[in-house]
Order: sequence, then structure tokens, then C-alpha cells
Amino acid sequence: MPEIAFLVLKKKPEKGNHNGETITMDKERISYHESVLNMYERIKKDGMTNVWDRYEAQGMGGNPDKRCAFCMGGVRCDLCSNGPCRSDAAKDKRGVCGITADGMAMRMMLLRNVMGASTYHYHTDQTIRTLKETARGNTPYTIREPEKLRTFASRLGLKTEGSDSEVALRLCEFVEKEFNKPAYEPSQIVEFLAPPERKEKWRALDIFPGGIYGEMMLSTSSCLTNVDGYYASLALKAMRLGIAMGYQSQIVNEYCQDILFGIPSPHTMRVDLGVLDPEYVNVLPNGHEPFIGFAMVQLARKPEWQEKAKTAGAKGLRVIASIETGQEMIQRWEEDNAFYGFTGNWISQEAVFASGSVDLFAADMNCSLPVAPLYAEKYNFKLMPVSELVAFEGIEERLNYNPTEAEKQAAQLLDMAIENFKKRKSSIESVSKLPMKEAVVGFSNESILAALGGSFDPLLDAIKNGAIKGIVGMVSCTTLRDYGQDVHSVAVVKELIKRNILVLSLGCGNGAMQVAGLCIPEAREFAGDSLKAVCKALGIPPVLSFGTCTDTGRLADLLGAISGALGGVPVPDLPVAAAAPEYMEQKATIDAIFALALGLYTYVNPVPTVTGAPNLVKLLTEDCREVTGGVMNVEKDAVKAVDGIEQHIMEKRKKLGI
Amino acid sequence: MPEIAFLVLKKKPEKGNHNGETITMDKERISYHESVLNMYERIKKDGMTNVWDRYEAQGMGGNPDKRCAFCMGGVRCDLCSNGPCRSDAAKDKRGVCGITADGMAMRMMLLRNVMGASTYHYHTDQTIRTLKETARGNTPYTIREPEKLRTFASRLGLKTEGSDSEVALRLCEFVEKEFNKPAYEPSQIVEFLAPPERKEKWRALDIFPGGIYGEMMLSTSSCLTNVDGYYASLALKAMRLGIAMGYQSQIVNEYCQDILFGIPSPHTMRVDLGVLDPEYVNVLPNGHEPFIGFAMVQLARKPEWQEKAKTAGAKGLRVIASIETGQEMIQRWEEDNAFYGFTGNWISQEAVFASGSVDLFAADMNCSLPVAPLYAEKYNFKLMPVSELVAFEGIEERLNYNPTEAEKQAAQLLDMAIENFKKRKSSIESVSKLPMKEAVVGFSNESILAALGGSFDPLLDAIKNGAIKGIVGMVSCTTLRDYGQDVHSVAVVKELIKRNILVLSLGCGNGAMQVAGLCIPEAREFAGDSLKAVCKALGIPPVLSFGTCTDTGRLADLLGAISGALGGVPVPDLPVAAAAPEYMEQKATIDAIFALALGLYTYVNPVPTVTGAPNLVKLLTEDCREVTGGVMNVEKDAVKAVDGIEQHIMEKRKKLGI
Repeated sequence: MPEIAFLVLKKKPEKGNHNGETITMDKERISYHESVLNMYERIKKDGMTNVWDRYEAQGMGGNPDKRCAFCMGGVRCDLCSNGPCRSDAAKDKRGVCGITADGMAMRMMLLRNVMGASTYHYHTDQTIRTLKETARGNTPYTIREPEKLRTFASRLGLKTEGSDSEVALRLCEFVEKEFNKPAYEPSQIVEFLAPPERKEKWRALDIFPGGIYGEMMLSTSSCLTNVDGYYASLALKAMRLGIAMGYQSQIVNEYCQDILFGIPSPHTMRVDLGVLDPEYVNVLPNGHEPFIGFAMVQLARKPEWQEKAKTAGAKGLRVIASIETGQEMIQRWEEDNAFYGFTGNWISQEAVFASGSVDLFAADMNCSLPVAPLYAEKYNFKLMPVSELVAFEGIEERLNYNPTEAEKQAAQLLDMAIENFKKRKSSIESVSKLPMKEAVVGFSNESILAALGGSFDPLLDAIKNGAIKGIVGMVSCTTLRDYGQDVHSVAVVKELIKRNILVLSLGCGNGAMQVAGLCIPEAREFAGDSLKAVCKALGIPPVLSFGTCTDTGRLADLLGAISGALGGVPVPDLPVAAAAPEYMEQKATIDAIFALALGLYTYVNPVPTVTGAPNLVKLLTEDCREVTGGVMNVEKDAVKAVDGIEQHIMEKRKKLGI
Repeated sequence: MPEIAFLVLKKKPEKGNHNGETITMDKERISYHESVLNMYERIKKDGMTNVWDRYEAQGMGGNPDKRCAFCMGGVRCDLCSNGPCRSDAAKDKRGVCGITADGMAMRMMLLRNVMGASTYHYHTDQTIRTLKETARGNTPYTIREPEKLRTFASRLGLKTEGSDSEVALRLCEFVEKEFNKPAYEPSQIVEFLAPPERKEKWRALDIFPGGIYGEMMLSTSSCLTNVDGYYASLALKAMRLGIAMGYQSQIVNEYCQDILFGIPSPHTMRVDLGVLDPEYVNVLPNGHEPFIGFAMVQLARKPEWQEKAKTAGAKGLRVIASIETGQEMIQRWEEDNAFYGFTGNWISQEAVFASGSVDLFAADMNCSLPVAPLYAEKYNFKLMPVSELVAFEGIEERLNYNPTEAEKQAAQLLDMAIENFKKRKSSIESVSKLPMKEAVVGFSNESILAALGGSFDPLLDAIKNGAIKGIVGMVSCTTLRDYGQDVHSVAVVKELIKRNILVLSLGCGNGAMQVAGLCIPEAREFAGDSLKAVCKALGIPPVLSFGTCTDTGRLADLLGAISGALGGVPVPDLPVAAAAPEYMEQKATIDAIFALALGLYTYVNPVPTVTGAPNLVKLLTEDCREVTGGVMNVEKDAVKAVDGIEQHIMEKRKKLGI
């Protein structure tokens, strides 16, 4: 198969001049990653719709960033038939129902939060379903971490005697009962897991949540026309939902996935589009749920499946980790020839397709583009929804994940991929020699503690003596607003480590760091001197790959542990911050709101669509400090953004007297 | 207190000429009801923001109906940070993620549906909570309908032995367990209550739902960016949610409210703004949940509370029914001096306030305008949220409903109202002599059957012999799009009964009919000759007041019963239709979708914001016939709308050979 050489990158021509013969590209507007820039050339050559061109096409008057001012400001609403309405705070122009600009913007934000919480919890529900069936012996999975099972059950106030299965079923029964509690009965999960000082604060604010389903119903119902039009009330409801989601959905999900699939611990992993070798059968589980993916890896590691692929003319069979399903997998399992590597984050998706190396794309509950069918046709791969949530126009076949059938389903998918290879092999020009790199992945609360020798003291000492100024949890997606894929995330993180701030990276933003080469020990060269020395001493990268966006809960739990290790320093007083330099979708919005409820300084970019709501903006970016201790900061410039974060960290250090 | 005379109504002047000295009005754009037109004059004189002026102000270029074309077409999206996006089906211009115009419009519609389902179910949850606490003896309520309790429990496959309390607790436990089922476990409630032919159809379409919480999570999660971009899949999910909501939320809710507060049966009720006498202490429970309202009526009927009011200088104490909370109440309880009458539907709200006769407005989970605080200040009444869902800017005090404290809460509210009267009496010019009318309310499945002598036969015979051509369930709100309050609803219903089609009216549309004088036996004069004769013979109005929008479930159950009485004629083959001539909010959208799933011809106005989505429009208005048997019709003209309904009914008659 012929190779496509890397084309020389040219500066983007003047606006509106994109349709000429010469395909030009621009890191600033396309992607930080060479591999993606390369594939963008092929996509353009092949005349395929793509995320970059679609972004440009949304711009008004030839300016890709210019959109409807009311939409950008979040001050429009089309919920009811008296609308669509636009509001204007300066003129007290309200919606027909009478809602203000502030109410409109926050209501829509709360709806987005509900969507994020719902999707997180959908995943959690599937995890508990899987754990239950595993405990009953009905899945291809096993309980890999009986110790964590007992530790976690014990933290939730449960008895830990009995077999692994008995404890697991006890745990599942407990959390399911908790999830189903009404909103007016306080969640025991939050009670058991959250830091004492936060719980007190949340009770005082009346945002201590009940069960997650009741909380979602409370928030959703509050958004109905003529129910809650008060931005401050809606913002508090968002925080309440965020707390419910963080502890009930995220932490329970990740810890139960640890129990099933292993606690993340540091190891190297191949990353970037070079992991796609067209001469192999390549199977990509994609989305957020790793169940089918792990089942496929278990099979692919068996010689008979490798043989099957070889019989079809391939060099072998590989499961390739992709997006967040990929993050869930790579943080827990080591690479080998059957579980080969990780592609990148969601904006890489069309580039992955265009590599011509995909045989099967198994789409679970998140992050599969609606244009995937067009790519499947062009680049000859099989597109299979594996969750009832997911659907594509023109794709009727599906295989909804069911834990009791997971092994059979995994085998069916692998068979489909092998069948597909036979067609793909002969019909498509695949690329080769796309770049491949390494990243160290798998940092978790347990593995960080282990790396520190079993106590947080070395880390706390490094913070106290200033070698590490502070810690930033970078939970982000990637977006094309403002900059190309990952451009701003990389800029922000490089600036942070340069200033001796340790970064934990999560979500699609974590994929950005891995592919950009920041998750290897050698990346300490980008760090300030004192952080560099700490990294060298501990043998860690300056950016610790901490999993997916769902691991936000794990990070909250880590902060709780650090707060405890410091004798109960309130979370808002720690020299830490949250950063989302390229948030994209609705999971990110609830993460940010949870961070505010936790009391964190939270840097967010792009500027959320709330700027038409002056009182809401003031609440989020100023007054919230007096409410929860958290505050939101928005800033397009990476250096200024980090100025703000550093200033916050230095203030907290001063307050702690360190 | 001085009277304000009815002002002569003048034709609305040319566009943009509303700010002159003379306040002009126009039935076409303001309201069908004289009382509201009258109060609009006062509102204008007092310079208050109001729904009519806010509607006009939303128009672009001086045209109140002109809005952003993308918003009107439903083809814009601001869910993620790559947006806001606009799509254009004609050019295959998609959102940045790649979603089509069809996907965008249906996704937003599904989100609205979730909001409607959530709010309906919130009410249901509160009803079950109330029934449980009542069974335990912890509320001021009693089980009024032990027979219905047992009939309903029996329909749900439950044993009916034991005391009322035991059966009630058994019922509550069962339905709560059912609500909490995951989406992948079929709902037994739907299994027990839905018509067999429909269940078969829904199974074939894979839209037979599980538990309502799981279904809401499934639908909400499907709306996330990059999850389900396929309009047909999203539409099926909407129907699945509609079915879950109709049987689990609406029917369970209404039947359990019947058990607690009485099965509706026909009786007369005072209606229109004339029920507000400024010389009384007037307490208005408002929203959708009747719990606090009933508790207040129970107290207000006691002489000591009337005495308290009189001591404060009032002629007495009255609980006034308002909007849907009011409908829930008036359909079950008879009027007297303490439970005096019903004001009107949601667009009447500012007019109610401006009457200057309100002392306390207790806002439960729906239908209280965000501008209520401005009116409370101007017209001196106490505004109290009585649900955690509800909040108003500037109102910090609240009294969230709790069944075990309902009596105490009701007393607190009545005390607040009496206190308020002292201030209001001296400070406000109240109106008097606003019109007051009568309506017959309280039709229900049981009371219709009773009116027919215990069997559906007389009704079915009248349909078979053509005296009644068919039946239309008119479930509607009221909206200012296209016409003034209730103008179009009244026009459609008058046209229906003229053509000998019997109307059951529900929701705010029911309020429209009551106040417009169509729910009295004498209204048969508007009916065609044969319907008139039937009405005369049975002593019923041509428009049967059938409760609130939540009673949509009750209506679905009635259709199931009629289908059964006809030996299993499928619902789509019955000579019936659903009509929403003035749908407004998100509860209405899920009602319409449920009607489509039930297989009904469903007339909807205003035109929903989906017109930019050609494939979706085709699915809803044509292809759906082949899917569920239901179909949507949109039409602004009342006569043409009824032409369509009548044509459908005649086709069904022909098919049945009648």
C-alpha cells in the first residue's frame, strides 16, 4: 500500500479563500498534532465533510468565530411556543414568559449539566450492572481487585465479610438503593465519601443532594417554562446536581471499574495515529464505556483469534484504544500486540477514519460523530453501535452491550472486523508511517501513593517547600473554538509546568497531553527547575495521566485525601486549581460546576455561552467565592490564564503560611 | 373600593403604535376573555411588564410573529462549545459535530420531551409520597376512594386484601419499584395498563419502555453531543419516553390523586376572574400539585378560620382555584364559600394579579411567571414558593411542601394571607364586578360511565349511528403565537362541536373552554343538530371538562377501555383524534408524542420549531402513519384544522363500516 508523504504545512490563506486547488493547513486552526494535520490533507483531497471545515462554515461574514450574538451570549430560548425569544439585560428585555437574561442563560446551562450528569450516570448504571453480573459469574470479567472492593465497601459503611461475590453484590445493592433515593433524602454515598468541611458547607447552602435520579429530575423539572427563572437558584441546583454526580456517578463508577478491570498503575503506552497499521485487523472500541473493549482484548490475546486474522490475510488482530473508552482501557491494562495503543481524542476521529486502517468502530455511549457513516462508506469500515444510546442515520444494525452476552458480542464484533479486513485490504489506499509515540499512563490515587512510598508526605513536603508550587487538575475536552485541536491545552499545560505547577490530566485533554509528548518523564525538560528535580527524583512526568473525564470524581476524592492528610485543611484553601482549557460538551460543564461546588478555582475556556447574563457572570466569576469558595476564571490567552491560576495558588500558599 | 368600568375595546392600531396615550386592545392578539381584556387595560395603565407586550417585543422589524428563521425552524444548537451552530438541510450544512438539521431539531424536541416527562413525574413522585404518608396516618388527607384503590391495585396485579392503608402501601411500594427499574427491564405498569394491540406494536418497534427514571436517563443521555444524531432514532426514543410517562407518571398520578382526593364527578363551578372578590382574603394555590391547596380548603372550611379572616376586616376567607392546580382541585371538590371558584389558565395570571384581590399566591411546581415578584410588589400580595422546584428572583422565603407537615404549612399560608389582607385592603384599588360564569366540571372515566348508565353502549351507539361523529381529546395550553389567549382553541372546539364531534377538554385548554362558556349544557346550542340531541338527552355539555394535562393518561386509559368495549378495535382505528390548538410548554410536547405513539391523529398548533428539518417533518406528518398509526397535523386556520380532523374521523368510520 502506498504511503502518503507528510505535506509541508502552509500558513492558512486569507479568509474565504479555502476552496482553491492548494489545500492549506494551519496548526493554529486545525490541530497541534502532525498526524492529524497529515490526515486532514487526505480528508480534503477526498472531499470529505470534516470538523474543521464545518467549524469554518458556521462563521458569519467569513469570520469563523463570529456567530449570532444572542446565541453566543446564552440569552435566547426556544423551549416554549411563545418563543423563540431573545433577552437583553441592558434593556430588561425578557422572554415572553418574563424570564430574564440571567435566568435564560443559567437555565440552559443547567439543562446542559443534566445532560452531562445523565450520561455519566448511564455509564455508572452499566458498570454496576456489569459488576452484579460478574459477581454472579455471568460475564467474561472477574473481580480483579478484591482488596479495593472491600476498602470501598467499607468506606460506604458496608460489611466486608463473605466472598468477593457476596461483597460485590452487597455493594451493588447499596449503591442502587442510594441512586434511587428521592432528592429530599440525603445521599449516604456523599455522606460517606465527601470531606467533612464540604458537607457542612453544602448543608448550609441546602445543596447537599439526595439520590442521583431524583436530583436529575429536580434539576430538569426546574428548567421547565415558568418554574424556576432565578439564575442564583438555578446555579445552586446545578452545584447540588454536580455533587450528586461527582460522588454517586463518577466515584462509584471508576472505583467499581477498578474492582472489575484493575486499579490504574503507571506503565507506558503507544500513542498517536501511528498505532494504526493498515496491515492488521484494527478494532476500535470508542466512546466512554470499556466493557466491550476489554472483552475484545481478552479474546484478541488468544492465539486462535490472531490465527483467524492471519488466515484472512492480516498480520494479526489488534484492539486499538480510542478516545475515552480508550483512556478507561489504557489506564488499567498494559499494551501488547493485541492491545496495541491509543489513537487520540475526539477531534482526531475523522483523521483516524481517514487513515484507512479501521476495520470496526464499535460506538458506545459517547463521542462518535454523526458523520461516521459517511466515513465508514468511504474508508470501508464497519460501524457498529454497541449502546442503545447511540444511533447513526443509515446504520440499522446494532449490538447493544449486555454484560451477560459480552463475550459472545465481543466475538461477533471481532468476526465482523476480520470480515471487513478482507474488503478493506483490497479496496483502500491506507497510510502508513504516521507518527507513533509513548506516554506513561495509569496514575491513580493508589498508584500516586505507591510512587510516593505509601504516604502523601513526600508530595506535601515538595509543596510545602515550594518545589511544587501547587497542583492543577486539567480536565478538558478539545474544541475548535479559538484554536486548533489541543493547541490551547498544550499551551496552558506547558505554561503551568514551566511555573513548577504539577499537572494531573484527565479526559480528552489527557489524550492531548499523551499525544503531545507531555506524559513522559523526559517532558520534565519543559518544567521549571524545581518541578524538574522532583520529577527526576520520583521518576515521573510533570503531567500525570490521570484517566478520563469520569476520573474527575477520583480527583475530588484525592483532594479529600490530601485535605485529610493535612489535618482537615478545607479544599478551597489548598494550593490547587481545576482547568478546562478546551471544554467541549455537557459532561465538561457539570465537571466545572462540581469543581465550583468543591470550592476550586476553575479555569474554563472557551468562554461559556453566558456572557449576555451579567448577574450570572458576576456570580460565577466573583461572588461564588463567598458561596462555596470556588470561582470561575475565563481567559483566551494561555499565559494570562496561568497568571490567574498561579496568583490563586500563591494566595493559598500564603494563607497556609508556606 | 372604586370600580373600574369595562373599557370599550378598540381595534389594535397599526404596528409600532402601542405607546400612545390611549391604551388599545385587540381580542385577536390579547385574549378571548373580556375579563382578561379588562385587566390588560389596568396592567397597561399601571405600566407593568406583561406577557402581551413581551410577546410583541420579541418580533423582529415590528412584526410580532417574525423571529430568527433558524430558531423558528429548530435548526440551531448551542449545546457544545464548538457552537452555536446553524444547519441548513438544503445545503447539507451541518453542525460542527456533523449533526444534520433533522437531528438537531429532533434532539431539541426530545430534550423538551424529557423536561415534560420529568415534571409530570415529579408530580407523581409527590403524589406517591403523599399517599404513603397518608396511609401511615401522617397527613391531613384520607383515602377517600377505597374502591378505586383496590380496583387500581388489582389492575396492577396486586393483592387487594388488608386494610386501606395496607393496600395503599402495597401499591406505593410496587409503583416505586417499577419507576426505578432500568430502561432495559420492561415496565409492568405499562404491561398491565396498555391496550394489547398497542403493546405488541411497541414491542415490535422496540419502544416498549422500562422504568421512567431509566427512560429519562436514556433519552437525556441520547441528546448529548456526539451520541445520537439520527432524527428517526431520536423520535422513537421520544415515543418510548412518552409511553413510559403516560402510563407510569400520568395514570398512576391521577388515579392515586383520585384515591386521595376523590374521583372527579360532574358538578358546577364558578369560573372567570369574577371569582376574585377584593373584600375577601383570597388565597391562590397555583401550579399543578393540589396537595397544599386541598389542605388549605380543609382549613378554610372551618368556622374558626373564617372568623380569623373576618377579624382582620375581610368578609371571609376563600381558596381560589387557579391554572392546573385549580383544575386538579375543581374536578374533584365542589364549590362553596370557602372553595369559591376558578380563575382561568396561565395567560390569565398577570390579569389575576392585577385584579388587586390576591392575598397569597402559593406557587407549586409549574406555571408561575418569573415576573410574579414585580406584581406581588405592585399589587400587594404575598408570593410563596411551596415547591423546591420553584424560585423567583428577590423572593427568599419559601415553604417546600412536605406531606407530613401539610396541615401546619396550610395554616401558615392562610395566616400569611390574612396578614396580607390587612395591608392590601388599605393600599390597593381593587376591581370588582369582573365577569363570573359557571362551568360543569368533573368528567372522568368513571363519571362518564355513570352518566351513560354503567356501560359505554349508549355512547358507542351514538357514535355508530352517527349522532356523534367522533371524539376529540383537546389537550392544550394557551399561547400568544398566532392569536390571543384561547382565541384559536375556542375557534377549533366550536368548529368541532358544530360538526357533531364530541370534545373532551384537558389542561389549560380546558380552562379556556370553562371560561369561554363551552362547558355548560346550554353550549349545546353551538353544536350540530345530532350532537345537540345527544347532549340534551344525556344532560351533558358538548365539551366535557376532563381535567388537567396530566389527565392525558386518564384519556389514554379511556381510549383503551373503549377499544376493549368494541372487542379490541386498535386505537388507531377509532374515530377519535387528539388536538392541541395552543400548545405552549414542554409537558404538551410529550403529550403530543405520546398521542403519536398511541396511534392518534394529532392536531398541533402553533407549528412546532421543526420546520427546518424536512425529513423529520415528513416523519411526523406522513410516515408516522406507517410506524405507529399516529400522525401529526399542523394548521393555523381553525376551519381547515377541523377539516383535517373530520376527514380522519370519517375515514376511520368508513374503515369500521359505520
